[in-house]
Amino acid sequence: MNADKIPDIIITRLPVYLRALQHMADNGIKNTSSQELGESVGISAAQIRKDISQFGEFGKQGTGYSIPYLLDKLREILKVDRLWDVIIVGAGDMGHALARYQGFANRGFNAVMIFDNDKDKVGQKIGDLTIEDTVDLIEKVKSAGVKIAMLTIPATVAQDTADKLVQAGVKAILNYAPISLNVPEDVKVQYIDPATHLQRMTYYL
Amino acid sequence: MNADKIPDIIITRLPVYLRALQHMADNGIKNTSSQELGESVGISAAQIRKDISQFGEFGKQGTGYSIPYLLDKLREILKVDRLWDVIIVGAGDMGHALARYQGFANRGFNAVMIFDNDKDKVGQKIGDLTIEDTVDLIEKVKSAGVKIAMLTIPATVAQDTADKLVQAGVKAILNYAPISLNVPEDVKVQYIDPATHLQRMTYYL
Repeated sequence: MNADKIPDIIITRLPVYLRALQHMADNGIKNTSSQELGESVGISAAQIRKDISQFGEFGKQGTGYSIPYLLDKLREILKVDRLWDVIIVGAGDMGHALARYQGFANRGFNAVMIFDNDKDKVGQKIGDLTIEDTVDLIEKVKSAGVKIAMLTIPATVAQDTADKLVQAGVKAILNYAPISLNVPEDVKVQYIDPATHLQRMTYYL
Repeated sequence: MNADKIPDIIITRLPVYLRALQHMADNGIKNTSSQELGESVGISAAQIRKDISQFGEFGKQGTGYSIPYLLDKLREILKVDRLWDVIIVGAGDMGHALARYQGFANRGFNAVMIFDNDKDKVGQKIGDLTIEDTVDLIEKVKSAGVKIAMLTIPATVAQDTADKLVQAGVKAILNYAPISLNVPEDVKVQYIDPATHLQRMTYYL
C-alpha cells in the first residue's frame, strides 16, 4: 500500500467512519456491517466497503466488521493512534471555544499553547493554558516541535501568520480565518468557515 | 440551466470563489482571470473556468472576468443576494462565538435567535440576542419561518434536536455536534467538526 496512491476524497471520509464507529463502541456495540455504518453516516454501503478495502481486508463476508479492530486500523491509518500537540493562534471567541473544547483528547489531539498579539490578553488563562505573545510564536513552536496549528485570527493577518507557522515547522493548519492561504506543497490546510458552509446549502433552498 | 444537474462538488467550490472575489473587490480590484483566481484559492484555472461555465458565459477571452459582475452572478446562483435568517441552538462556547461572529451579515446571513435548554442561561443576552428556551424552539422557528439552523450542542442530544428543527420547517443545518445526523432528503446538512478536519491532515504527516 502506497500512501500517495489513496485518493484524497477517501481520506476525507475515513474520520467520519472513525467517529461513527467510536459512537457505536461507546454504546457497547462490538460488530457492524457496511450497511449499518453507511446508514449512520449517510454514505452507501458499497462506497464504504470500497474505501476501507483500499487499506486491506478488514471485514468478513457475513459477519461484517469487528468494531474494536476497525477502530484500531483506522486510527493507525489516520495516525491518531497517538496524541498530537496542537497550538491555537488567536484568543478571540473562537480561540477560547477551541481552547476549552473537550472533544479533542480522545480523538488524537492536545492543545498545548495559545497565542495572541493583544498585549492585554497575554498572560491570561484559558483553562490550563496561558495566552502567550505571538512575537514568540516561531521560537516556541519550533523548539516544541509542534506540527499542527489552528488559526482563529482575522483574514487580514492570516497569510502573514500562516507564513510564520510554516517557518516554525508547522505542517498542518486548520484555518478558521475566512481566506484561502498560500502555503508550500508539503503543508496541509483545512478550512472551517461557517458562512462558506451555509452558502453551500442556500443554493438548494 | 437545471439546478439539479449541477454536480454537488461544483456547488461546494462556488462559495470559495465568491469569498476570494469579495477579497479582491475589497482591495479595489475590478477584473481577474481564472489563472489569478485559481492561484488565490489553490484550484486550477481550467477547473475554475469549467465550474463557472456551468452557469453561463461570464468571462471574456482576453479580458477575463469582471469582478462586480461575477460577484453578482455567484451571489444570485448561491441565493445569497438576500439576507437569510439563521437560528443558533446551543449557547455554549461555540454558540456564543457564532452569536458574536461579525462575518455573517455581508455574506448573506443574520442570526435572529439563540436557544438553550439550560434554564440558568435563558434570558441572558449575547450581543443583540436573548437566549430563549429550547422548549419553545419548534413554535418560534415555525412561526418566524426560519429555514437555516446552526447546531452547537452535545452529540448525545443532536439527533433529537435535529428532528425538532425538521419539524419546525428548517431545511438546512450547519452541525457542530460531532455526530452524523439522519434527516429527510429535502434537508441539507453541513458538518463542522475540528477533530475530523485535523484527522484529515494527520494522515499526511
